[in-house]
Amino acid sequence: MTRAQPESRLTTGHSLAARYLAVRGLSEALVAPLSEADATLQSMEDASPAKWHLAHTTWFWETFLLRDHREDYRLYDESWPFVFNSYYETEGERIARFSRGMLSRPTLAEILEWRAHVDEAMAPLFARDDLAPLIELGLSHEQQHQELLLTDIKHALFQNPLGVAMWDTAPETAGAGEEGWYSHPGGIARIGHQASGFAFDNEGPAHRVLLEPFALASRLITNREWDAFIADGGYDTATLWLSDGWAWVRENTIRAPLYWREGEHFTHIGWQDRDPDAPVAHISYYEADAFATWAGNRLPTEFEWEAIARGQEGEAPAHDPHGGNQLDGAAPPLPRGSEGLFGDCWQFTRSAYLPYPRFRPAAGAVGEYNGKFMSGQFVLKGASCATPRGHSRPSYRNFFYPHQRWQFTGLRLAKDL
Amino acid sequence: MTRAQPESRLTTGHSLAARYLAVRGLSEALVAPLSEADATLQSMEDASPAKWHLAHTTWFWETFLLRDHREDYRLYDESWPFVFNSYYETEGERIARFSRGMLSRPTLAEILEWRAHVDEAMAPLFARDDLAPLIELGLSHEQQHQELLLTDIKHALFQNPLGVAMWDTAPETAGAGEEGWYSHPGGIARIGHQASGFAFDNEGPAHRVLLEPFALASRLITNREWDAFIADGGYDTATLWLSDGWAWVRENTIRAPLYWREGEHFTHIGWQDRDPDAPVAHISYYEADAFATWAGNRLPTEFEWEAIARGQEGEAPAHDPHGGNQLDGAAPPLPRGSEGLFGDCWQFTRSAYLPYPRFRPAAGAVGEYNGKFMSGQFVLKGASCATPRGHSRPSYRNFFYPHQRWQFTGLRLAKDL
Amino acid sequence: MTRAQPESRLTTGHSLAARYLAVRGLSEALVAPLSEADATLQSMEDASPAKWHLAHTTWFWETFLLRDHREDYRLYDESWPFVFNSYYETEGERIARFSRGMLSRPTLAEILEWRAHVDEAMAPLFARDDLAPLIELGLSHEQQHQELLLTDIKHALFQNPLGVAMWDTAPETAGAGEEGWYSHPGGIARIGHQASGFAFDNEGPAHRVLLEPFALASRLITNREWDAFIADGGYDTATLWLSDGWAWVRENTIRAPLYWREGEHFTHIGWQDRDPDAPVAHISYYEADAFATWAGNRLPTEFEWEAIARGQEGEAPAHDPHGGNQLDGAAPPLPRGSEGLFGDCWQFTRSAYLPYPRFRPAAGAVGEYNGKFMSGQFVLKGASCATPRGHSRPSYRNFFYPHQRWQFTGLRLAKDL
Amino acid sequence: MTRAQPESRLTTGHSLAARYLAVRGLSEALVAPLSEADATLQSMEDASPAKWHLAHTTWFWETFLLRDHREDYRLYDESWPFVFNSYYETEGERIARFSRGMLSRPTLAEILEWRAHVDEAMAPLFARDDLAPLIELGLSHEQQHQELLLTDIKHALFQNPLGVAMWDTAPETAGAGEEGWYSHPGGIARIGHQASGFAFDNEGPAHRVLLEPFALASRLITNREWDAFIADGGYDTATLWLSDGWAWVRENTIRAPLYWREGEHFTHIGWQDRDPDAPVAHISYYEADAFATWAGNRLPTEFEWEAIARGQEGEAPAHDPHGGNQLDGAAPPLPRGSEGLFGDCWQFTRSAYLPYPRFRPAAGAVGEYNGKFMSGQFVLKGASCATPRGHSRPSYRNFFYPHQRWQFTGLRLAKDL
Repeated sequence: MTRAQPESRLTTGHSLAARYLAVRGLSEALVAPLSEADATLQSMEDASPAKWHLAHTTWFWETFLLRDHREDYRLYDESWPFVFNSYYETEGERIARFSRGMLSRPTLAEILEWRAHVDEAMAPLFARDDLAPLIELGLSHEQQHQELLLTDIKHALFQNPLGVAMWDTAPETAGAGEEGWYSHPGGIARIGHQASGFAFDNEGPAHRVLLEPFALASRLITNREWDAFIADGGYDTATLWLSDGWAWVRENTIRAPLYWREGEHFTHIGWQDRDPDAPVAHISYYEADAFATWAGNRLPTEFEWEAIARGQEGEAPAHDPHGGNQLDGAAPPLPRGSEGLFGDCWQFTRSAYLPYPRFRPAAGAVGEYNGKFMSGQFVLKGASCATPRGHSRPSYRNFFYPHQRWQFTGLRLAKDL
Repeated sequence: MTRAQPESRLTTGHSLAARYLAVRGLSEALVAPLSEADATLQSMEDASPAKWHLAHTTWFWETFLLRDHREDYRLYDESWPFVFNSYYETEGERIARFSRGMLSRPTLAEILEWRAHVDEAMAPLFARDDLAPLIELGLSHEQQHQELLLTDIKHALFQNPLGVAMWDTAPETAGAGEEGWYSHPGGIARIGHQASGFAFDNEGPAHRVLLEPFALASRLITNREWDAFIADGGYDTATLWLSDGWAWVRENTIRAPLYWREGEHFTHIGWQDRDPDAPVAHISYYEADAFATWAGNRLPTEFEWEAIARGQEGEAPAHDPHGGNQLDGAAPPLPRGSEGLFGDCWQFTRSAYLPYPRFRPAAGAVGEYNGKFMSGQFVLKGASCATPRGHSRPSYRNFFYPHQRWQFTGLRLAKDL
Repeated sequence: MTRAQPESRLTTGHSLAARYLAVRGLSEALVAPLSEADATLQSMEDASPAKWHLAHTTWFWETFLLRDHREDYRLYDESWPFVFNSYYETEGERIARFSRGMLSRPTLAEILEWRAHVDEAMAPLFARDDLAPLIELGLSHEQQHQELLLTDIKHALFQNPLGVAMWDTAPETAGAGEEGWYSHPGGIARIGHQASGFAFDNEGPAHRVLLEPFALASRLITNREWDAFIADGGYDTATLWLSDGWAWVRENTIRAPLYWREGEHFTHIGWQDRDPDAPVAHISYYEADAFATWAGNRLPTEFEWEAIARGQEGEAPAHDPHGGNQLDGAAPPLPRGSEGLFGDCWQFTRSAYLPYPRFRPAAGAVGEYNGKFMSGQFVLKGASCATPRGHSRPSYRNFFYPHQRWQFTGLRLAKDL
Repeated sequence: MTRAQPESRLTTGHSLAARYLAVRGLSEALVAPLSEADATLQSMEDASPAKWHLAHTTWFWETFLLRDHREDYRLYDESWPFVFNSYYETEGERIARFSRGMLSRPTLAEILEWRAHVDEAMAPLFARDDLAPLIELGLSHEQQHQELLLTDIKHALFQNPLGVAMWDTAPETAGAGEEGWYSHPGGIARIGHQASGFAFDNEGPAHRVLLEPFALASRLITNREWDAFIADGGYDTATLWLSDGWAWVRENTIRAPLYWREGEHFTHIGWQDRDPDAPVAHISYYEADAFATWAGNRLPTEFEWEAIARGQEGEAPAHDPHGGNQLDGAAPPLPRGSEGLFGDCWQFTRSAYLPYPRFRPAAGAVGEYNGKFMSGQFVLKGASCATPRGHSRPSYRNFFYPHQRWQFTGLRLAKDL
């Protein structure tokens, strides 16, 4: 990774208040190139407007920190929770998800004012040690929405037949990683969050699992390899596919990853030539699984992936040593080419997103954060080019439905030994 | 109608060029109170973004006047016809209708620049007599889109649970008209456009029809009368309804006109108390028909309506003598209270929208303007508070599907004599 | 028409009791070739199982004659009205339309027993003059269901990829009619039922309409002519189609009339070669309209059709003089080749199905028979090869939605003079 | 379990030929009480007609045994594979799943003739040792369809508002099991099929998993307990539900298990009073999970369930020692009240249906049997009252989507120790 890092980058060592401001500032920086109309678009029920992400993250701080922990705080606008609550049943009724795209008001300027107001009101709370875990949760929450903001706006701009770009600077690219396999002898592995830093509730409790001997590919599958899959009739061969996947291919006339057309793909800087050596992105679980079958291999389990990540990188955030390839500034944040297991694309595992042994959701509304989504989805590991720096870790469990592919999703093969 | 008329109002007597500029200017004035995001909203497939209306009307001039009749004209942007053509098959492929709401770009400012460019390029064409009919068509076309722009943006803002307003000035209101009936002895009536001015192709050819003796109500049904219909179980009584209407009521849980809640209704100036004496608006054909059945009367045919309109008002635009109650300026254009048969609401007739004898669509793409919609829709007569001044006339045939009600649609009863 | 007529054919001259038995017997004869399972199939919401037709018609007699007019009569089974009422809101709640295909019970044998029971109970009622109109309505109602039974079972058997036949005897065929035009000078024509015999309420009141000079084709469009339409790109040429029709063509990938494949079409005797000289059947209004446009002509109005029918044939049922080509026995009832305007196919008119002046539905539940369907449908005139003999007449108004085509629907052109 | 066992019951000890005939005979016995129309009904896409089950199982034998392994065998009817193949892509195109209900032909009698023909043709193949595994697969396949036949016909008859029964004899019932918990100390457990008998490919390879200490309830949740869940607002409390589950509850207005109304439930002998002490059945995964959350417990993993089953019962089919409570004859086969972990209801686990380590589907078309369904579904363990005797075992993995509940599905709680 060759891109120079901004001086102002804030990492775990900084104070909570400084990290709060850095995270909040990045959210706003991401929206800077967008027009009021761009920021209001909602292209599908899975996605939300950029403006809504700015507002929802602010609602989170206002609700769970200011309202609950500052007695003197009054809601900025009492009617806004109805439109900016995402899915917290405990917090009451809310707007239908697909109506988020109808919110031309409040305006972007009004939301930015609300953000400033909330940021100011937050100041006294950083000194309270009892709130630190909740604030960490809020930071991680906002970082997740930064990534969603980027993938959602990409999907929205893609709907425009005129080929609209959000940025005009192309990030530098790096060569693909080395081809090879990380081997693991099997046996008992420690899984789940075990260190002292922040983690979501779904990353624990830490526990042991028994692994068979296996190997994990040292790099992601590339566009070139995906082209070979297509050329070999991958999308026309029923026997490569899961039954649900094949139905999905046929009903939606799927012929390639999302955002592909001929030799190009749609990006935040508009339509671009595809680099054959770059990791393939924007594939569904169904496609990842079919490719692995075609290649004579399989997807890893989330446990295998984590075991390799820990062996390779230890408990510390795995990708920091190699330089930050994830989102960390207002400049075009989508370079590619990472070392290690993190970066470029989230990687599908064949593990369903289910609770670890003795998992209990947190009490209260924030207990809705993760646990209630534990059916029908698959775990993804790693991080993508749109993941904020320092956000992921070996125990991190991202999750999506098997047909979804508007995230930067790719695949890394595994095989039995 | 008590509102003072702007001095600058341009009517049929003015030059074509002056009228062109007045019409074009009104389109832009209507959008003035909207934000970039407001102007991009599309709330349903039937509706279009305000910005799209500005662009589509400009596409019309550019395509059918400038491209076809100015040899030296070059398209402002060659990729725009794909996104701003509405339904002209002859003009090639175009964006899916429900994707119009994804067009955050071009921006409102860019579209206004395009408008200015086209307006300038149009200048030489007003002198060409051979183009006058086509220019008149373009003016009427743009006026139709002005009304759609107002009804579409009303529907879009209504989606926002925060109760957003577009204007903050309430127009004056006038008392309801006199209750009574216009009688007609029956016999042969002349129907269709017969004068020298502009009319759409679907208003002709003029022809004769044979009428039975009948009477037409001298005023529209009011909110008070509609409340009585509701109180009497109108929405719960299957036998009042057409079969398709009853299915529509049940599937959509219809309990009142669109935009009603308790004693209020949603307007361009936000949620307002309903005036019991104002005409009921935003009802579907199904509702109008059920009400008429409940009232022991029926809807008029389009021929009955026109025969009364001609008897009352002659061939000249019927509503001008009574003062302009329709859209004619940038000020809040939605007052109510008209005399005669025009104004307040379009009035459902029980006539299906079908061709008149010897009807032939115009040649070329503009032949798609009216004729191809002649199935499944009903004719509405009159004009509404959102209709531009001077746009309607006795032979005017508006048309919508029986379930649609986002236009200012009301009803006027008829009965057999 | 060359087929010998059965001796037992019962016409208007016979006693009401005798005609009742003949009509009832024909319903049962039509079901004779069907298995219990065949008779239970429902292939789409528009269609009903053959067994259901047998039961629903019996429900009609039991409800409106026996229950209402025989004090001593007890319902055969009190739970059956819920499943065999079709759409009479006045008669209470009923099974969802698309669940009719789930009624494996009561069995066919049980329904036939019910029919016998009802037939026996009806005997005393034929002597009551006051009931004669209602009994005539019941007979016409049952005849309508005989035609529906045939078109519904055809559609159901068509779903079976194995190419199932209902009959094994092919009816004789006759040559196509003479090519030519019936001219009409225009002027005032009497429309609607005017004679003393039975008619549905929607055929009246009789009234006058004003016609322009026109001509009506003397024969129906043939398969050969339809092939030419296809060969000329009829289904690929947007400008030939109504807007709704073109959307229907694209969404449903319509390439030919229903039941066509290559040179064959599906019939009650299975897949058969198409006769190029036979009238084209199983087309939608959209297709009929597009063909007429392609041919440089148009569809007639219902008034034009009726005026010619009366001029040609007088008030008496128009098709009797030429021999019965409609359904009248248990033998294969689908020959083709008629003279006059009746027979082979129902003919689309460009008239929407709307009430005649001063139309009032009958009082009570039977008032739901026709009037409540007066939106969104088009009138068809004539009769088809599946219409029971003596059922139609010049004032008869059949009606279907513009996309429906599982009836024997064809077209006869008209033109202005 | 008190019901006397039929003498003729055939168990694993009998010859393959004898077991083949017994299984085949049971399929036909199950259909005996059905009419031709009953056997043709398809009530939803998930279900198939009874007649189709008879035919599809026969297609399996004809295709994978006779066609592939008897050179002289000719297909009984070459057009039938198209309609009776279920989902084997390798075997070519086939009828759309939801069109199975349109197959009134071939008739039930014709299918029974085909069955007899195939049974006769199978005779020489039982002597071939190389085919024994494939024949065992065919037997297990047909047994699975016996259970589906029973649950599908129950669902079909349930659609009939007349309350149709399939059998008129109610099976005896037994008291509920003892309340209590089976404890497990955790540690490494052997999972998957390890014995010599038949098992599906998805039950292996046998492998080790690491368990935490836990306990499994000794009996299933009862109707009485489910009533308490309802009375406590279970279906109205969002926080008890998975997010997808809550959406399912709201969209489908779920208020109780499938087949419940007031104090009754629908059964193969019609509407019956519910026994409060009987296990609750016909619940979805979402409901099972919400109940467990409400009860302060959780669902077991498939590994926990199997570990207890093995500890309790050893490797032999677990339910045989306790007497057969599963389907084994033509008499009403739905008694309840079992000992051990098998019987009454399939039991939801919180384990997603995924491949075991080193799982490879079998080669050829039968490789499509299990592996391709490994996304989006959950594993169920045990057996139900509709499971043929001897069909299940501790390693057996049944699987359904989390919203499906037309199977006899119940729940058994687990908890951490």
